[in-house]
Amino acid sequence: SSTDDTRGSEPKVLSNSIFAPLDTFSRRHIGPNAQTAEEMLQALDPPAKSLDEFVKTVLPAEILSSKDLQVEGPVPESGSMPTSEGGYSESQLLARLREIAGENKVYKSYIGCGYAGTRVPEVIKRNVLENPAWYTSYTPYQPEISQGRLESLLNFQTMVTDLTGMTIANASVLDEPTAAAEAMTLSLNALPASRQKRANKTYVVSHLCHPQTIAVLESRASGFGITIKVADVLEDGSKVVNDVGEDLIGVLAQYPDTLGGVEDFRNLADKVHELKGTFSVGTDLLALTLLTPPGEFGADVAFGNAQRFGVPFGFGGPHAAFFAVGDKHKRKIPGRLVGLSKDRLGSPAARLALQTREQHIRREKATSNICTAQALLANMNAMYAVYHGPGGLKRIAEKVAKMAQVLARALEDAGLEVQKPGFDTVIVKKHEPGLFAQKVAQLSLINFRVVDDEHIGITLDETVGRKQMEEILRAFTTDTVDVEHIAAQLDASVAVPESLRRTSAFLTHPVFNSHHSETEILRYMHHLQSKDLSLVHSMIPLGSCTMKLNATTEMVPISWPEFANIHPFAPSDQTMGYAQLIKELEEDLSEITGFHSVSLQPNSGAQGEFTGLRVIRKYLEEQPGKKRDICLIPVSAHGTNPASAAMAGMRVVTIKCESKTGNLDMEDLKAKCEKYSEELGAIMITYPSTFGVFEPQVKEACELVHKHGGQVYMDGANMNAQIGLCTPGEIGADVCHLNLHKTFCIPHGGGGPGVGPIGVAEHLSPFLPGHPLVEGVGGSKGIAPVSGAPWGSASILPISWAYIKMMGARGLTHATKITLLNANYILSRLKPHYPILYTNEQGRCAHEFILDVRKFKETSGIEAIDVAKRLQDYGFHAPTMSWPVANTLMIEPTESESKAELDRFCDALISIRQEIKEIEDGTQPKDGNVMKLAPHSMKDLICGEWDRPYGREKAAYPLPWLKEKKFWPSVARLDDAYGDMNLFCSCAPVDSIEGITGKEAPMPT
Amino acid sequence: SSTDDTRGSEPKVLSNSIFAPLDTFSRRHIGPNAQTAEEMLQALDPPAKSLDEFVKTVLPAEILSSKDLQVEGPVPESGSMPTSEGGYSESQLLARLREIAGENKVYKSYIGCGYAGTRVPEVIKRNVLENPAWYTSYTPYQPEISQGRLESLLNFQTMVTDLTGMTIANASVLDEPTAAAEAMTLSLNALPASRQKRANKTYVVSHLCHPQTIAVLESRASGFGITIKVADVLEDGSKVVNDVGEDLIGVLAQYPDTLGGVEDFRNLADKVHELKGTFSVGTDLLALTLLTPPGEFGADVAFGNAQRFGVPFGFGGPHAAFFAVGDKHKRKIPGRLVGLSKDRLGSPAARLALQTREQHIRREKATSNICTAQALLANMNAMYAVYHGPGGLKRIAEKVAKMAQVLARALEDAGLEVQKPGFDTVIVKKHEPGLFAQKVAQLSLINFRVVDDEHIGITLDETVGRKQMEEILRAFTTDTVDVEHIAAQLDASVAVPESLRRTSAFLTHPVFNSHHSETEILRYMHHLQSKDLSLVHSMIPLGSCTMKLNATTEMVPISWPEFANIHPFAPSDQTMGYAQLIKELEEDLSEITGFHSVSLQPNSGAQGEFTGLRVIRKYLEEQPGKKRDICLIPVSAHGTNPASAAMAGMRVVTIKCESKTGNLDMEDLKAKCEKYSEELGAIMITYPSTFGVFEPQVKEACELVHKHGGQVYMDGANMNAQIGLCTPGEIGADVCHLNLHKTFCIPHGGGGPGVGPIGVAEHLSPFLPGHPLVEGVGGSKGIAPVSGAPWGSASILPISWAYIKMMGARGLTHATKITLLNANYILSRLKPHYPILYTNEQGRCAHEFILDVRKFKETSGIEAIDVAKRLQDYGFHAPTMSWPVANTLMIEPTESESKAELDRFCDALISIRQEIKEIEDGTQPKDGNVMKLAPHSMKDLICGEWDRPYGREKAAYPLPWLKEKKFWPSVARLDDAYGDMNLFCSCAPVDSIEGITGKEAPMPT
Ligand SMILES: Cc1ncc(COP(=O)(O)O)c(C=O)c1O
Ligand SMILES: Cc1ncc(COP(=O)(O)O)c(C=O)c1O
Ligand SMILES: O=C([O-])O
Repeated sequence: SSTDDTRGSEPKVLSNSIFAPLDTFSRRHIGPNAQTAEEMLQALDPPAKSLDEFVKTVLPAEILSSKDLQVEGPVPESGSMPTSEGGYSESQLLARLREIAGENKVYKSYIGCGYAGTRVPEVIKRNVLENPAWYTSYTPYQPEISQGRLESLLNFQTMVTDLTGMTIANASVLDEPTAAAEAMTLSLNALPASRQKRANKTYVVSHLCHPQTIAVLESRASGFGITIKVADVLEDGSKVVNDVGEDLIGVLAQYPDTLGGVEDFRNLADKVHELKGTFSVGTDLLALTLLTPPGEFGADVAFGNAQRFGVPFGFGGPHAAFFAVGDKHKRKIPGRLVGLSKDRLGSPAARLALQTREQHIRREKATSNICTAQALLANMNAMYAVYHGPGGLKRIAEKVAKMAQVLARALEDAGLEVQKPGFDTVIVKKHEPGLFAQKVAQLSLINFRVVDDEHIGITLDETVGRKQMEEILRAFTTDTVDVEHIAAQLDASVAVPESLRRTSAFLTHPVFNSHHSETEILRYMHHLQSKDLSLVHSMIPLGSCTMKLNATTEMVPISWPEFANIHPFAPSDQTMGYAQLIKELEEDLSEITGFHSVSLQPNSGAQGEFTGLRVIRKYLEEQPGKKRDICLIPVSAHGTNPASAAMAGMRVVTIKCESKTGNLDMEDLKAKCEKYSEELGAIMITYPSTFGVFEPQVKEACELVHKHGGQVYMDGANMNAQIGLCTPGEIGADVCHLNLHKTFCIPHGGGGPGVGPIGVAEHLSPFLPGHPLVEGVGGSKGIAPVSGAPWGSASILPISWAYIKMMGARGLTHATKITLLNANYILSRLKPHYPILYTNEQGRCAHEFILDVRKFKETSGIEAIDVAKRLQDYGFHAPTMSWPVANTLMIEPTESESKAELDRFCDALISIRQEIKEIEDGTQPKDGNVMKLAPHSMKDLICGEWDRPYGREKAAYPLPWLKEKKFWPSVARLDDAYGDMNLFCSCAPVDSIEGITGKEAPMPT
Repeated sequence: SSTDDTRGSEPKVLSNSIFAPLDTFSRRHIGPNAQTAEEMLQALDPPAKSLDEFVKTVLPAEILSSKDLQVEGPVPESGSMPTSEGGYSESQLLARLREIAGENKVYKSYIGCGYAGTRVPEVIKRNVLENPAWYTSYTPYQPEISQGRLESLLNFQTMVTDLTGMTIANASVLDEPTAAAEAMTLSLNALPASRQKRANKTYVVSHLCHPQTIAVLESRASGFGITIKVADVLEDGSKVVNDVGEDLIGVLAQYPDTLGGVEDFRNLADKVHELKGTFSVGTDLLALTLLTPPGEFGADVAFGNAQRFGVPFGFGGPHAAFFAVGDKHKRKIPGRLVGLSKDRLGSPAARLALQTREQHIRREKATSNICTAQALLANMNAMYAVYHGPGGLKRIAEKVAKMAQVLARALEDAGLEVQKPGFDTVIVKKHEPGLFAQKVAQLSLINFRVVDDEHIGITLDETVGRKQMEEILRAFTTDTVDVEHIAAQLDASVAVPESLRRTSAFLTHPVFNSHHSETEILRYMHHLQSKDLSLVHSMIPLGSCTMKLNATTEMVPISWPEFANIHPFAPSDQTMGYAQLIKELEEDLSEITGFHSVSLQPNSGAQGEFTGLRVIRKYLEEQPGKKRDICLIPVSAHGTNPASAAMAGMRVVTIKCESKTGNLDMEDLKAKCEKYSEELGAIMITYPSTFGVFEPQVKEACELVHKHGGQVYMDGANMNAQIGLCTPGEIGADVCHLNLHKTFCIPHGGGGPGVGPIGVAEHLSPFLPGHPLVEGVGGSKGIAPVSGAPWGSASILPISWAYIKMMGARGLTHATKITLLNANYILSRLKPHYPILYTNEQGRCAHEFILDVRKFKETSGIEAIDVAKRLQDYGFHAPTMSWPVANTLMIEPTESESKAELDRFCDALISIRQEIKEIEDGTQPKDGNVMKLAPHSMKDLICGEWDRPYGREKAAYPLPWLKEKKFWPSVARLDDAYGDMNLFCSCAPVDSIEGITGKEAPMPT
């Protein structure tokens, strides 16, 4: 059983074979070793005799799994024993992964369709993508220790607004098709209430949008009761729009379109606006360096994939999509928005703006559930723009556009029928294009797009040179074509239709015009990095976020070309390595969750929720009886839960929690189940609960819901507390999403990427999402896709695969035990100093717990935010603040933190408790004390005058080790209200003398 | 010609082909673009009309080359034009290098002979080796901004002293054979003067030392007039030692020896000591975790290669060699030594100790010329030890030792004659071992060592597992061997001879026992990194050091297994890629220097000097006439010059410089040439001179020396000022060394690695150094090798190769012009504020110049060191201090710095001049002012009391941009004298409460 002592104890480093590898992983991943774990068990309150005895006090007996976890380990050499951990050693893992990678074939892909080849500048790859200081940080919720990535995301937003010509852009969304979906729901939301309620409300989508965009729109539309009408939006003076009339939500067009055409949408925009609809445009940032931007021809929303700005194909992702709106919609923009504000000292500083719009507040009224986005990739895109500057980007665009012209001309010269390219894509008429593309792939190792039954598409990019061009031409003609000659003959300006030539300037801010030498950009990246706290500095104890080690060996493979340089729609015989890895990962995740099958398509937890609920709904539709669209959600649920439920078209009914234990109020649940018995669709529960406790009645709750015909959706954000000890499947869930970016070591990247796969029970498997362009994805009756790429953010899956394979079943299970131990160790150390909000009957928490600081408001005026900010002075990131309970702090250490680090953290909180006491005692005043003025930046302390009731040393060095290891917040406490009132979301005006921002954030333009 | 305007102007980004790559490199490498260069030309004093006009005011007309530089660029695609820069674009370069790398065959190598397989922990590889914050820093001359790598080097020294059982260790030497040579010269130096002078003074070397060690000893011995006697040092009660008697300098033995034997040297040590000789032992750190350390059996010196502690083979290097001595010799230890001292606030802090011993002081009396060492690799070794800890290292050693026993037993069982292994190496008798090894390589892709005509050697390492063991055995027997069974039968303790089993503890310091999880070591590495200023922060204007960009694309390939995992003695058919790259690099360097051929063997500039002089001597020996052993060296020469000359057995005669111009005193030169005409061997000159000026009479000087039968040795440290404009060859030199770690982009790594190739004229080519184990190295009458590996630090050669290939001839030439412009721009901006020591008649410097701050001593008490330390407060590394002229600062910006950065630097120095003025004026006192108390650490400023004549803000933020971008020295000014008096060179005692060191550095033990 899972608490079997042999299996439960620390995995041995050595098997008894002298040949066993010594570079075993789990002891590197897990902070405490056997000896410190022992010390910690003894320090618990109450103490525990052994790890397994301890686990029994944490998990209800009926939850504990009856089976041992099984994870396929390295093939043992003939006759030899596997290592006792069962997992791959680091070098074995890399060797195996090299083999798998070798099964992928890296052909040149001209498939286009929303993805284009790009050159990742090596200096950006090494210093951002491969740099733990960038990839291990969290979403910048604590702006004082996140100014680096906030500035970079401001650059991203500026790049997007400048290039699209829109007013405001957010800090990325998940991918281009979901961005389209966000545009659609924003359009809906922008309608007057009466029109939102119309039965036939219709969203008109150009037939020249990418097929995966249309498919994802379909999946998103159904929950909102929207009809999607795919049509030629320009035909007959945009007749289709007129036809829809008052039912119109808006129109979506693409520019350049999926066939490479560039059309003038000015009249269309007017028409949409006349009908009070919203006009959205999918577009391409590179093209916009040459083309009139959407903001100049009437678009209300512009979005697209920023991938070709320095992020590789990655077999579909992760990539940052961008999303920008005009002035009218600027407070409706979904996702995270970085804005300028100022700090306590009046210095400009960036932070996440309009956080009040988050799902936690709006809950089921939210029209978007986006939480984790694509920050790391957005930062790469922004750096790409900083590195190339406006001139460099334009040169790239011109090269691409001219090459497309040359290609078209050359093909015409060879007698082919060609559609005149608008930017980078050439469409050629070709008999049996499928067979042709296959043959070309085999012979020339290049991929074309099979557009339809009679056309081939070829999309060019910055990696194409003469040699590649000649290769492409050789596929069509045996004649030797002198491409230089053709190029020389082309009019320099033919590349872009005259009427749509861009005239406005872009990226004029100095940040895009200063860092063009490698030395300069290197220093710029490192300067930004130096402002940000990440896992390279200290524990990030964010409850519900699982900030564990992202090991180098897990990260290394994502830079390999065999994973990075594969187009998502590459033929399947070129992606056998990916297929193998995906199969193994799906199997392992199925085993870990106790489910029948897994879909890796959703690229965030929230997307997983939406997907899972859509799967449930599709299943329920096939069941007899009434429409089951009620979704029960406990009050304690994460805000994405009700948002996702609403997006899936469900009506949310709230379930209470017991105020004393935090557990689900079983009476209320029973009552609601009965009340809605015939319409009950699902319950969404988080396990262990968002309060950090393994609720004893979870099985009962599942049974109850099942009895009433509902399905059980488990939010797997807390899966790190379960692995190897229990499974959602055995507990009784039907679906569960996992956050690979929490539990399975994909780094948070400063706010994404993420992967949110769902595991489902057998009866739901047929409904897993498919894909319009790729076969073999999802179930036989699969729902429409939820991501543009068949397997979502495929290129980061090796990280989670590697984690599971290196930990092995024993390592994974041991990690879970230590994760529980670590949380309970902190709890035990802090209990004498702070109230703990919830524990189970044995006084234990799960992998996280809530520190209750609410009473200090009365005794000293101190609130959770003051504790959070003061922790920065101690070198720590704050725990999760005010969620799931307002004005409390939720602490999750993960298994990767050592006892020494946990002790440093406890010492800091205990010292802070002392500081609160001084205020309670009256030794320190209620205002202007060291906590209210926290955090202290260097600038704050290095000033001439000092009139505070505490000394500079106390501010900076409250504990002795800080003198050796001090992380400095780069600004003082942010003024959030100011920033939200004065929304300004691009690079600061130049007249600023310091820092990234203007002296004062000006009013938005 | 080189000043042709077309060629001289900024290379164009685009050729006129639309297919030309856009990722061209030289514009990324060079800071100023065409527009800023123009601004700078105008700002010069006097201004210059164009870049080429400017160059003509810098270089004497007769020096300017008459030819255009030619460097092989990318093969142009058929019919297409090369890019106008001529160089490879970044992606072209990587593609070409992938091809070249593909010609290397990565077989498993069990060749041993001083190099063993190792696993570089991925977390160390990514965060140290591949991290510019570690690899771009300089030797830690400025300790206040270098505490991170100083602490890491202290760890290295502690690791070495602990494992060897010696008293003190230095911070690395170049390689194991040169370490042996250092041991020999130290031994000579330790003798009473009378014995040093004996004609037949003899160094006895065990015949069981590695062959390359013996070969390098030979090359080093000759200059000192030492006879090397290679013998069985244990035979007949060490009879050979007695035989040598009073002529004895010392004895060198190896433990474990080259054939893997482990012998008891206790009696030998006694015998050597009786004869007042020094006993040195070459050893292996991994073996010493199991074996009695040399310090416990009477060794006075212990040294070896630390490579197997986490640094790959790299086809021979770079690797850090270690060097440790007993108490008696602790002030004689060569190379750099990190010691503990304290800072102005009394806090413990590390710095380079005993710097007074450097060559600049001892000059021709120095017995060692080591300057650049192997800091980066030493840091990797130290981190490897920190990561594994004593237990982990011992487990690795035991595994290796036991596997060797198993292998020996299995081979015996198969009927072979085997020498019992002492640690990791098994010697097997085998008929025709050469043919056998060849066949095995072909069939099994593994390499054995061919020891002699009848033996094969097999050295095992931590990368070997069961599969590898079975592969090895299959080469000898067709029977299936159950190695697990043999292993199980072996007595657990047989691995090491009983009498030599280690009993003493090692690596007990907490630093080796705390950071074993990946999270912990990651944070430790980043914490250290955060204390160090490197090129990721700001310009490092160290004169004579050329701190230019080390571009990522140059650095990427050194991590590729095809370069990293090749044993230096791998058969040549496996190293064709290296051969190709080396050939091209030699050709390009020959072209650049104007020489006939190049040797890449020396792994530092100083080694290059020694090599060049040895080549000259060998050549001169063949000439008729007297022994020519006089070496003329200007007083301005770098200290390594006279040291190298002395080591090459030459008598140094100093040449004066004119005090007004700094130029060579031609009268003095003439006089000395005439005086020593018959004995004149060589002159050593640096060009441009170490004073930073292109001396006009250099050709004349060369002719003069030639006329008197001498050879001209050019120190190429300043080659960055010459490339494409002039060549040492045309100027008249016969030999020149280059510092690839200066001019050709190998990063300084915090004090190494380096590569110091020499270029030679045709008549000297036959004498280039060879190698005892590898064919095809060096000239037909080559001198004995100067490095252990045939091509020295081969694995970093791709960096320089890539630099040259990407810059192309135009880019290289343009870089030189900009390097001159950058220096003259700073000069022009500073001239109104500071005296400039030397310029040419047009008021120009070369690529560097000397800021003369001597007069401030009198006016304000300010010295160069105060300016240097105050610059740290402004976020800059100091220029080279007090060399070549005491109490001055030598500034070299390189071409990679942008105008913006140069301006920041000038602003800082101008602001400092203002601060000096305040002292001159009496506004500020002469003592305790902001300059004398510089640099200011955070701790220094964040204190309660403040009684200084200047404010905290002035200390920290003297210029406005520092508020946005501030680099903090982690300690206050170091107390050097204290540290040298209280020499303490390992990790601080544990009772210290803070930082890396004890409260006070204790007296050495
Ligand atoms: C309980 C819970 N559910 C869902 C989510 C949303 O996951 P994601 O950010 O990946 O969309 C979170 C995020 O923290 C969470 O904590
Ligand atoms: C003029 C000169 N010669 C020789 C050297 C020695 O070179 P290395 O440090 O590579 O041994 C230096 C080092 O800076 C130097 O400046
Ligand atoms: O390193 C130098 O000695 O310049």
